[in-house]
Amino acid sequence: MSSASSPPRAGILVTGTEVLTGIISDRNGPWVSEQLRKLGVDAAMIEIVGDRPEDLLQALRSMAERGLALIVTSGGLGPTADDLTAEIVGRFCGREMVLDEPLEARIAEILAPMMSRWPNLDPDAIRRSNRKQAVVPEGATVLEPVGTAPGLVVPPRHGSGDDPGGGPTVVVLPGPPRELQPMWAAAVATDAFREAIAGAVEYRREIVRLFGIPESEIANTLRDAEAAGIELDPLEITTCLRRGEIEIATRYEPAAQDAYDALLGFIEQRHGDTLFSRDGSTIDEQLAGLLAGRTLAVAESCTGGLLAARLTDRAGASEYFLGGGVVYSNEAKTDLAGVPPELIERVGAVSVEVAVALAKGVASRFAADLGVGITGIAGPGGGTEDKPVGLVCISVCSAAAADGPRSITRRTVMPGDRGDIRDRSVTVAMHLLRRLLLGESDEGRDRLGGGEVPVGR
Amino acid sequence: MSSASSPPRAGILVTGTEVLTGIISDRNGPWVSEQLRKLGVDAAMIEIVGDRPEDLLQALRSMAERGLALIVTSGGLGPTADDLTAEIVGRFCGREMVLDEPLEARIAEILAPMMSRWPNLDPDAIRRSNRKQAVVPEGATVLEPVGTAPGLVVPPRHGSGDDPGGGPTVVVLPGPPRELQPMWAAAVATDAFREAIAGAVEYRREIVRLFGIPESEIANTLRDAEAAGIELDPLEITTCLRRGEIEIATRYEPAAQDAYDALLGFIEQRHGDTLFSRDGSTIDEQLAGLLAGRTLAVAESCTGGLLAARLTDRAGASEYFLGGGVVYSNEAKTDLAGVPPELIERVGAVSVEVAVALAKGVASRFAADLGVGITGIAGPGGGTEDKPVGLVCISVCSAAAADGPRSITRRTVMPGDRGDIRDRSVTVAMHLLRRLLLGESDEGRDRLGGGEVPVGR
Repeated sequence: MSSASSPPRAGILVTGTEVLTGIISDRNGPWVSEQLRKLGVDAAMIEIVGDRPEDLLQALRSMAERGLALIVTSGGLGPTADDLTAEIVGRFCGREMVLDEPLEARIAEILAPMMSRWPNLDPDAIRRSNRKQAVVPEGATVLEPVGTAPGLVVPPRHGSGDDPGGGPTVVVLPGPPRELQPMWAAAVATDAFREAIAGAVEYRREIVRLFGIPESEIANTLRDAEAAGIELDPLEITTCLRRGEIEIATRYEPAAQDAYDALLGFIEQRHGDTLFSRDGSTIDEQLAGLLAGRTLAVAESCTGGLLAARLTDRAGASEYFLGGGVVYSNEAKTDLAGVPPELIERVGAVSVEVAVALAKGVASRFAADLGVGITGIAGPGGGTEDKPVGLVCISVCSAAAADGPRSITRRTVMPGDRGDIRDRSVTVAMHLLRRLLLGESDEGRDRLGGGEVPVGR
Repeated sequence: MSSASSPPRAGILVTGTEVLTGIISDRNGPWVSEQLRKLGVDAAMIEIVGDRPEDLLQALRSMAERGLALIVTSGGLGPTADDLTAEIVGRFCGREMVLDEPLEARIAEILAPMMSRWPNLDPDAIRRSNRKQAVVPEGATVLEPVGTAPGLVVPPRHGSGDDPGGGPTVVVLPGPPRELQPMWAAAVATDAFREAIAGAVEYRREIVRLFGIPESEIANTLRDAEAAGIELDPLEITTCLRRGEIEIATRYEPAAQDAYDALLGFIEQRHGDTLFSRDGSTIDEQLAGLLAGRTLAVAESCTGGLLAARLTDRAGASEYFLGGGVVYSNEAKTDLAGVPPELIERVGAVSVEVAVALAKGVASRFAADLGVGITGIAGPGGGTEDKPVGLVCISVCSAAAADGPRSITRRTVMPGDRGDIRDRSVTVAMHLLRRLLLGESDEGRDRLGGGEVPVGR
């Protein structure tokens, strides 16, 4: 499913040995890629190199050879000797390095409060190393520092003699995301940036999400859609499996809106039961909306707080999230969620019965409208033949429904390692909660005409 | 701080539009980079490209031009039409694509249980799309699938006529980390892999970690170490700030051991109070060791379960972690951790007093030896002039000490966004717990001769 070619394209160059060696993970490449996409510019590649000047220069040259119109770099703008990006980009663009005196004064001003905060630092050493940050390629536009490092937009090479000049415009940004991101708008507003991306094509991008079917099913559906006469050529479709959910992202030019609408209709018809998001909204966003005006408490064993942490990751969660118990020990299950010790004794801590008791108990304990209980074996140890590693029991219940208490409970064996099992359990719990909030329940299954819905895989 | 040059080097090529566009974040590049490092092979670069065949081929060629001996690819081995890596690598290595019949049979065998589990799938469609996965470049070594996709080790190009052949060996691995990682050992064991990395230099790598000082101080220390006569040239030093901790990673050839020992001694002398790890161990690992034989419970407000989730991320955590309360609402603080409502009324939920009450209350509630209480304002809303966003109060206490109850409590204003503040709070809590377990405490501060230790910044 490829779309028509779409000049201009961009390259993203992330620098830093600590990123290349995996000590820290890169957040800038994907972020810049997404910002470029919004401007109608495709990122052709993200390249990560260490702090070796020759690797940096070679990466820039290889991007230029690929005909990219714009290069965005991150990192290597710090005060230390191995921070070389500005100089290398200057060389790549054939521009002399010059001291920008107002910029030097500006950086000194920024450093003043820090120097008073850490009084033991050597002021001369700091001034020396930060003067370096004020030396920039001739003709570059300086972007106001957010930390201490200024960003740069460096126009293409001048022509001279046989050399026609040209090549990519290079946007040079600092490595820390909290410095890079606020600088982006200023970079985009420069003339050199605008000129580099002139001719960008406007794209639309839609995302739908499904939960509870294998990825290969989507491949089949796309084939069948095409066989049914839906034109997929103008749609660039990417499917991916993430945290147990399937995401289908489609990018297209406005003229292909009808083709997209037809595809979406086909998917809705085929997968109505597992398609939970037509507008790209995440399960997290949907739950936040569905929970408005209600209250929730959770009791987690094997997920150890991950569900609570994910729910409270959103600002404003305190409006519906009352709290939770991380009930790792059997005593905690009893004490915090009122699970009878005899029940644990009889059926074991990892059981459907205990999951139900946790959900009901924690809701009652917190006087919440809704409760979630999770108990399972995340491994690597603790599995038995009857109860293997990966076995997780999850229950969601509502005490407040007008038609009496309702609940959904599932027992699943999840694949993967400890981290996968914990993460997947949280996702399943969130989907069960969504279904409960939309009116589904084990009690009402016959009434609603629903069957067993597979969850996870 | 650069070291001698070190052939052979490798390139890592991560494929997938979903990675390039930031829909999912790449975990394979850093992981493979780290595995290569252990074999003495530097990764020169990590490149991420989408699923366009021309971009893939250009990336491979650009790596070959840089003289890399080995290329490791991830992704693009699935059953769908946009999974093209094997074919493109075959073209790059000048090798014809041939159907490997035993491999086709093996994949069918792997698919059988899945097909019985999802009975609605069309078996023919599946067999067709998975036959594709059994078509491999001639002369390649096939790596046994972990999922359904086999890996490949493809030797360099044959020579013929004017073409001398040669170039990099290409290791082709699937995208999902849980498939890629188990295949690595088999890839490394192949002759083609071994030949490609012949001549790799043995390196040592040591990591030390500090907590509670700014990164610029380390830059100064390195300068001073050099001025004091310690030879840094043979040491390749990378410093980075991560989750509020500073990590200094040093790589060197065995002959430079004395230089490294001298540097470590210098750092120990300067930063003994903030240097918490000399052997690369993380705070998580250290806490797991220190907690052996004791029990712990936590009460979290603004971190919403993140501390419990991080503590239980380790297998075996159930030996010391009893559980915790996510006490988001004031009622939960009272009910789960026994914080008196009058106290919250008087000093506010975000206060040193409530942090102490949470720590003591939750320890008593769970009958645990140790308790942790965290309360703060993670934002973006909820801040006031007195209590700004980022204000977090953290207390750790021990009820079980022979010399009476001990505790450490800190009030800090943390920088960053909601996610940063929550994450940093967890790190600070873990460091306070470590200090408490090592005998430090607010009560014993005079006795132990310690002063106020800055935490966070």
